[in-house]
Amino acid sequence: MSSSFGKSFRVSTFGESHCKAVGAVVDGCPAGIKLTETDIQPQLTRRRPGQSKISTPRDEKDTVTILSGTENGITLGTPIAMMVLNEDQRPNDYKEMEFVPRPSHADFTYLMKYGVKAQSGGGRSSARETIGRVAAGALAEKILKEKHGIEIIAWVSSVGDIDCTQPNFDTINRQIIDANIVRCPDSNAAAEMESLILKVKDEKDSIGGIVSCVIRNVPAGWGEPVFDKLEALLAHAMLSLPASKGFEFGSGFAGVKMRGSEHNDPFVMKNGKLGTKTNFSGGIQGGISNGEHIYFRVAFKPPATIGLPQKTADMNGKEVILEAKGRHDPCVVPRAVPMVETMAALVLINA
Amino acid sequence: MSSSFGKSFRVSTFGESHCKAVGAVVDGCPAGIKLTETDIQPQLTRRRPGQSKISTPRDEKDTVTILSGTENGITLGTPIAMMVLNEDQRPNDYKEMEFVPRPSHADFTYLMKYGVKAQSGGGRSSARETIGRVAAGALAEKILKEKHGIEIIAWVSSVGDIDCTQPNFDTINRQIIDANIVRCPDSNAAAEMESLILKVKDEKDSIGGIVSCVIRNVPAGWGEPVFDKLEALLAHAMLSLPASKGFEFGSGFAGVKMRGSEHNDPFVMKNGKLGTKTNFSGGIQGGISNGEHIYFRVAFKPPATIGLPQKTADMNGKEVILEAKGRHDPCVVPRAVPMVETMAALVLINA
Amino acid sequence: MSSSFGKSFRVSTFGESHCKAVGAVVDGCPAGIKLTETDIQPQLTRRRPGQSKISTPRDEKDTVTILSGTENGITLGTPIAMMVLNEDQRPNDYKEMEFVPRPSHADFTYLMKYGVKAQSGGGRSSARETIGRVAAGALAEKILKEKHGIEIIAWVSSVGDIDCTQPNFDTINRQIIDANIVRCPDSNAAAEMESLILKVKDEKDSIGGIVSCVIRNVPAGWGEPVFDKLEALLAHAMLSLPASKGFEFGSGFAGVKMRGSEHNDPFVMKNGKLGTKTNFSGGIQGGISNGEHIYFRVAFKPPATIGLPQKTADMNGKEVILEAKGRHDPCVVPRAVPMVETMAALVLINA
Amino acid sequence: MSSSFGKSFRVSTFGESHCKAVGAVVDGCPAGIKLTETDIQPQLTRRRPGQSKISTPRDEKDTVTILSGTENGITLGTPIAMMVLNEDQRPNDYKEMEFVPRPSHADFTYLMKYGVKAQSGGGRSSARETIGRVAAGALAEKILKEKHGIEIIAWVSSVGDIDCTQPNFDTINRQIIDANIVRCPDSNAAAEMESLILKVKDEKDSIGGIVSCVIRNVPAGWGEPVFDKLEALLAHAMLSLPASKGFEFGSGFAGVKMRGSEHNDPFVMKNGKLGTKTNFSGGIQGGISNGEHIYFRVAFKPPATIGLPQKTADMNGKEVILEAKGRHDPCVVPRAVPMVETMAALVLINA
Repeated sequence: MSSSFGKSFRVSTFGESHCKAVGAVVDGCPAGIKLTETDIQPQLTRRRPGQSKISTPRDEKDTVTILSGTENGITLGTPIAMMVLNEDQRPNDYKEMEFVPRPSHADFTYLMKYGVKAQSGGGRSSARETIGRVAAGALAEKILKEKHGIEIIAWVSSVGDIDCTQPNFDTINRQIIDANIVRCPDSNAAAEMESLILKVKDEKDSIGGIVSCVIRNVPAGWGEPVFDKLEALLAHAMLSLPASKGFEFGSGFAGVKMRGSEHNDPFVMKNGKLGTKTNFSGGIQGGISNGEHIYFRVAFKPPATIGLPQKTADMNGKEVILEAKGRHDPCVVPRAVPMVETMAALVLINA
Repeated sequence: MSSSFGKSFRVSTFGESHCKAVGAVVDGCPAGIKLTETDIQPQLTRRRPGQSKISTPRDEKDTVTILSGTENGITLGTPIAMMVLNEDQRPNDYKEMEFVPRPSHADFTYLMKYGVKAQSGGGRSSARETIGRVAAGALAEKILKEKHGIEIIAWVSSVGDIDCTQPNFDTINRQIIDANIVRCPDSNAAAEMESLILKVKDEKDSIGGIVSCVIRNVPAGWGEPVFDKLEALLAHAMLSLPASKGFEFGSGFAGVKMRGSEHNDPFVMKNGKLGTKTNFSGGIQGGISNGEHIYFRVAFKPPATIGLPQKTADMNGKEVILEAKGRHDPCVVPRAVPMVETMAALVLINA
Repeated sequence: MSSSFGKSFRVSTFGESHCKAVGAVVDGCPAGIKLTETDIQPQLTRRRPGQSKISTPRDEKDTVTILSGTENGITLGTPIAMMVLNEDQRPNDYKEMEFVPRPSHADFTYLMKYGVKAQSGGGRSSARETIGRVAAGALAEKILKEKHGIEIIAWVSSVGDIDCTQPNFDTINRQIIDANIVRCPDSNAAAEMESLILKVKDEKDSIGGIVSCVIRNVPAGWGEPVFDKLEALLAHAMLSLPASKGFEFGSGFAGVKMRGSEHNDPFVMKNGKLGTKTNFSGGIQGGISNGEHIYFRVAFKPPATIGLPQKTADMNGKEVILEAKGRHDPCVVPRAVPMVETMAALVLINA
Repeated sequence: MSSSFGKSFRVSTFGESHCKAVGAVVDGCPAGIKLTETDIQPQLTRRRPGQSKISTPRDEKDTVTILSGTENGITLGTPIAMMVLNEDQRPNDYKEMEFVPRPSHADFTYLMKYGVKAQSGGGRSSARETIGRVAAGALAEKILKEKHGIEIIAWVSSVGDIDCTQPNFDTINRQIIDANIVRCPDSNAAAEMESLILKVKDEKDSIGGIVSCVIRNVPAGWGEPVFDKLEALLAHAMLSLPASKGFEFGSGFAGVKMRGSEHNDPFVMKNGKLGTKTNFSGGIQGGISNGEHIYFRVAFKPPATIGLPQKTADMNGKEVILEAKGRHDPCVVPRAVPMVETMAALVLINA
């Protein structure tokens, strides 16, 4: 009962791994926007499995169809329903796992909550659930870009203990980021990350990473004070992504070591407008955007499904050795990049 | 328009620094609970300003009155309204700042959003706004404790670059934590932290810190998948606190460096129940509690209001030197401890 | 858990008959509006008990205090909390009824739902609960009037089988309506209604009535299609008032007997703007205002609490004779007039 | 932005007359319910156009497909997406009307609100929008029936000035109601109603009617006090149906003429349980069900689209003669019967 997100631009997603289709309905899209499937497809393609040698071999085209809400390629102001048919369903891959809850996976908690362990129910906790989000996010991004010039750019900034150098926040773009399959704008770090992911994959293991994101051109004055601060909604959105473990914006955890006198961002004139000299605030003060770049980072854990044998217990507590045969990602962050952008777009369009 | 939190146990807060009263209305409190002001007051007292030499000298008793929702000390199932009168209002203290937006404060963003700069409006972004939350949270905590045995314990784990050793999550309690004014359970670290805060205070500067929190006895199966995952709601709640900059649960940002094979929490029998051997998951998998301790950390920045002269600009971009004369905390984390507990309680009672 | 109303202008009410205070918190009031208690008090005074010989003798001044959200008489954009202290509490009056559910009252259903029968809980179903609504509605009306010129005028159109002649919708105002204690603009009908109410009161019985309402100057284009049509929200609001039994707008139930060719409202030019010649639509088409007068009627049943002995049964089914000693209204419609206006204002300000 | 309904069982509908598909996503359907298309189709078939000589000749099969939320015919607790493809689209039929707002239709108000006049946008205000509701309602009905034994039965009680005799509320069922194409359980009245509708159709005119509804076996204690009273939610739901003009429950508008002493429903023992002797309350007291039959009536106006020439004005105020060529219902009530049942089911499943 939490498959919808947002208030004024409300997204309701549906679909599991093994049903007919996955998708989303967007209620609150303005009328008069040009919209066809070609606006939505690119982010779905960046998200799709099987896109490179470092992602899961599960191969799906993830082709989107717009069911409602447009006429002659123009939005009507009515709900936009978007659907992706499920093609490649191999429920048998997971059969062996049926009676043993996979460690650090949602198998156990879903069973505790819903009392049933259906493959597709678990599938709702899989990355496949994010297709509806990404479709809705692509629509949100288009509106933000066309109406406000807002640009949302995410990239892989860490894989395991390999960190990338910080890119130029003013110029970083998706072309630079998609130049390699890791989606890291620092090509040296990217090469190291790729090697690490392949090594981990060979070892039937997995590894975590960090996705960083900058949002440009958000006008000052977006967001709300008190409970629904912009940073609170961003944190909510990012921690709702599968496998995420942490969120920080601006100075983040590093900021706790700083003095107020160095952390405060003094006001200065910049290009004829009042701005701040530094940006430890990450573009948000008191829950409201201040016109500077919004900047945040999201931590993702190593995927729980691994090929290595794991000593664990079944539901009766009996010790068993579990060896996953399903197809899975050794590292989620390259495919998480469009998901982070998506959730950022859904937060902003509701702000 | 975001002064309410929660769905089934809905809290609506009100009040600024300079009006008659601050407080909260709780809609959705069950009937039949014993409730008087003495259940609510302790957390307000832990939150109140002027409680020690390391907090702001602004001195308020913050005495709570229950206006509605109880009869003969028993809740009726109707809304509980709680009120704290504002006693110590010295708007003049802030007069000097009236035309210069304080760096890294909400002055500028409020002006951008609302078009007016009232002292009390800004006061809504001050820590005084959190009184209503803490009152509601104390009520939530009482219900969680009595109905489910749930215990929520937060403490100061870092101030600046001083970290405390990790306490025993099974036994840590508020008595241990309140043994010193820093609210850090490691007495050596606490002494160092106190010295650092006093030094920073003397220097008219400020410093950041981290509050850690453990929640015991949450049954497996609480929370929701997809958008309103338990960790997402916790992140939302914590990032809605003034001055917070980051949130991580379980392994958090450190988890990105781990392999899946070490990060996965294998199942084992514990006291006759299925549990996990390690707890890198932080008690939550796929958005739903797994019965282990829920554990998370929240980063707080150094307070923006400092006595040191700051070079900044007024609204016309003219360079000015700003020197705050108001009373403020040199470090928020000791008083943030009950706020973190409060927000955790409000998330859980809605789960 | 349903003590709040509205989305953008959200009202949360609190308080029962026998607690310290009743009131409301309004979240979403715009900044910069002039507001003091004198703007709120008049509607509360029109609603208050003991105002005339045809209302309950329970006498309360119902003086409102604004607790938060204003500074120097100007709204800040923060929540407005308003409170009325309970003065005249005589719980003993109701003692006799304690173990016998009053026929057609909420005693039985509250007991079924909440499992407790507290006097104040029942008091939440009493007209006293509406004080918070009326305070919030008075604020909403003020904003609607000042920002949009919208006027909301309700009056008593029927008491028992006495109907008033239809007033001129363009000129009817509160001064005309308050010229008599029945609040009926047709003085002949008003005299008859007054006699009937006094007769019914003498007989220790009660009688029903109808409140009609016209809303002037709502611009075309307010409201939403599909589930939250303007008429649906008005119906929701009106049926949430204690003792209401029905709602109709425009042609209403009488419209079912008409042909489309006579019921359709043809477009014509009126004062240089496109309008409709007739107004069977009641100012709303497809859920959205069309610029004509919005017009609707609300049916209220005879109050359930009567002095006449009633043959009924206690919770064990044993036959008993019930004779109410409490103070009650013989007819609710004169006091329902400001409540209908209130709920209309709360719907419109959210539209 | 109001295409969703309900809180715990949340329905989001999508689709217009001229897009690819219409449908609904239901968030909050419990896991473990048997569900296939055959559970949903019957109510859609009762709703579909072209079903008899008294409904619109627009002929659509309205075959539903379940896209997600089930596995092997069992619900998973995840969102249920349901879709009906649009087959018969003849936008040209409406071409003539494109520049003249149809009297008493949503053309004018949609133009005022959204600034565009798309055929499909207007189509969102057409009866086609209700397909998604009916699909979701059929699911809700199934759950209410299986879990609680609740039965919802609606019928046509008036067409124009022809009223049916009141059926036995204990035994009335859909078989009796569907025995004639008018869906009126009184066969004499049904024959007269059919003649009247055919006469009106011949005359290219339209006529209004009333749908009555009884809900059996709702346990005492469902619903909420204050703003979201059960009757308020029913009124909201019914007035959200296209062409509805009024709602009354229990004694309704007729109740205003009664004395409290006759209107009050005294308690008596019935089959070993406390019940009421009469049911002027319509099964609801203070917003909460009392265990008696819930009973209400909904007024529907004559359809606005008629074949008769109408003198009206275009957007410039120029007088024109409008003659509709589209296919339309001469009377909506026979097809409104499943819609009223649907909305009642959606209210109850959220109660």
